[in-house]
Amino acid sequence: MNDTRGTGDLESRLRELGSRRYHNLHPFHQMLHNGRCTKAQVQAWALNRYYYQAMVPLKDASLIGRCEDPALRREWRKRLEDHDGDDDRPGGIERWLKLTDGLGLDREAVASTRLLLPATRFAVQAYVHYVRERSLLEAIASCLTELFSPQIITERMSGMLAHYDFITPEIMAYFDKRPPQAERDANFALEWVKQHATTPEQRQAVVDTLAFKCDVLWCMLDALHYAYVTPGLIPPGAFVPKDSDA
Amino acid sequence: MNDTRGTGDLESRLRELGSRRYHNLHPFHQMLHNGRCTKAQVQAWALNRYYYQAMVPLKDASLIGRCEDPALRREWRKRLEDHDGDDDRPGGIERWLKLTDGLGLDREAVASTRLLLPATRFAVQAYVHYVRERSLLEAIASCLTELFSPQIITERMSGMLAHYDFITPEIMAYFDKRPPQAERDANFALEWVKQHATTPEQRQAVVDTLAFKCDVLWCMLDALHYAYVTPGLIPPGAFVPKDSDA
Repeated sequence: MNDTRGTGDLESRLRELGSRRYHNLHPFHQMLHNGRCTKAQVQAWALNRYYYQAMVPLKDASLIGRCEDPALRREWRKRLEDHDGDDDRPGGIERWLKLTDGLGLDREAVASTRLLLPATRFAVQAYVHYVRERSLLEAIASCLTELFSPQIITERMSGMLAHYDFITPEIMAYFDKRPPQAERDANFALEWVKQHATTPEQRQAVVDTLAFKCDVLWCMLDALHYAYVTPGLIPPGAFVPKDSDA
Repeated sequence: MNDTRGTGDLESRLRELGSRRYHNLHPFHQMLHNGRCTKAQVQAWALNRYYYQAMVPLKDASLIGRCEDPALRREWRKRLEDHDGDDDRPGGIERWLKLTDGLGLDREAVASTRLLLPATRFAVQAYVHYVRERSLLEAIASCLTELFSPQIITERMSGMLAHYDFITPEIMAYFDKRPPQAERDANFALEWVKQHATTPEQRQAVVDTLAFKCDVLWCMLDALHYAYVTPGLIPPGAFVPKDSDA
């Protein structure tokens, strides 16, 4: 039976899309992992990616703010705790700043986000607005890129530690914690969308959402590659590396 | 007297910013005007820029929807008429489709916007959201890039007609109408912000808004340059030119 619209099929459609469009396939990502980036390029990546990290709790909070189911709100609140931390435990944003500190970037400049590539700001804001404005199903589906992140984070950890003398385990602390969190979150969201996307149109909306989210991540790497690798044209106002890091 | 915060000074700050950050300085723009683009690159530009044209009335309508002053609403309504046209007169969006038709692009594919570069979509949506979410002063100031557009449009008309054998006066009809409209609109908006930005913070917000809007336009050209010129890496799902136009 050719059940191309069953829920089992939804998962295989999502995994197939990710295998073609997740940003681990982007040339900048491959440079980063394989040790072919300069320190300046790693700095530019970490500084821009900071904005993504910093905005994740805003999108999660706006999602919780639309959930009428207390159990779903409690489940999703774990993500706020992971990113924002609490009195005893730094969250993901704080750990990301340890990375940018370790790379020699000024913390105030990073946290101000004033040196971002405009494309980074626009792509991340598109994600935040998507979660805020689309259906709850699409808002939840937009995190499904996490299905593919545990592997990439593990590769990134080992690749960056092996290849860059300016990268130490301490400044990579962000990545230690993420794989189990991402796996838990992705599995929850996958089961939720499989259960709640009951019509062909809803399943298509889930697939389209994953494509949108892959575009967000891909666009961020396009902009980094354009500004800091080839042709290397930095837009006005964005981060300019020091010559000593180039 | 060194009145760096007077209204006269606001205009000179805006003009100075535009002289450094308006997208006429972008290398893709210079290629386009100087006849160094392939037909495929002109197609990619027109197809992506279509989305900007198509979304302008949405941002204008959301601005009108926030105006309590009927005179301001009437003034701003001219922009809706210019872009959307009426029964007797095609608007700017329709005339832009004449350009994409003339370039050999499928009208349905252009109008669907499914072949956009993701960065185009995100940048234009950032503009729409900015107008919807910021103060009325910032919403109005966000059109001030039009202060610089009459000259660029005139240069574009003559440059493109001179350099490309696939460009004819008929398919460039969009650009005939725009310079006087843009000049009228920019002058209105400039006078409005000079009158209403009465504190240093408000004048700074106007300047920051123009910088944001320059970033939107610049980001769109960065993405075109990256995908279709150097390094020429087209993101998954975006417009792929025919070999015969490359």
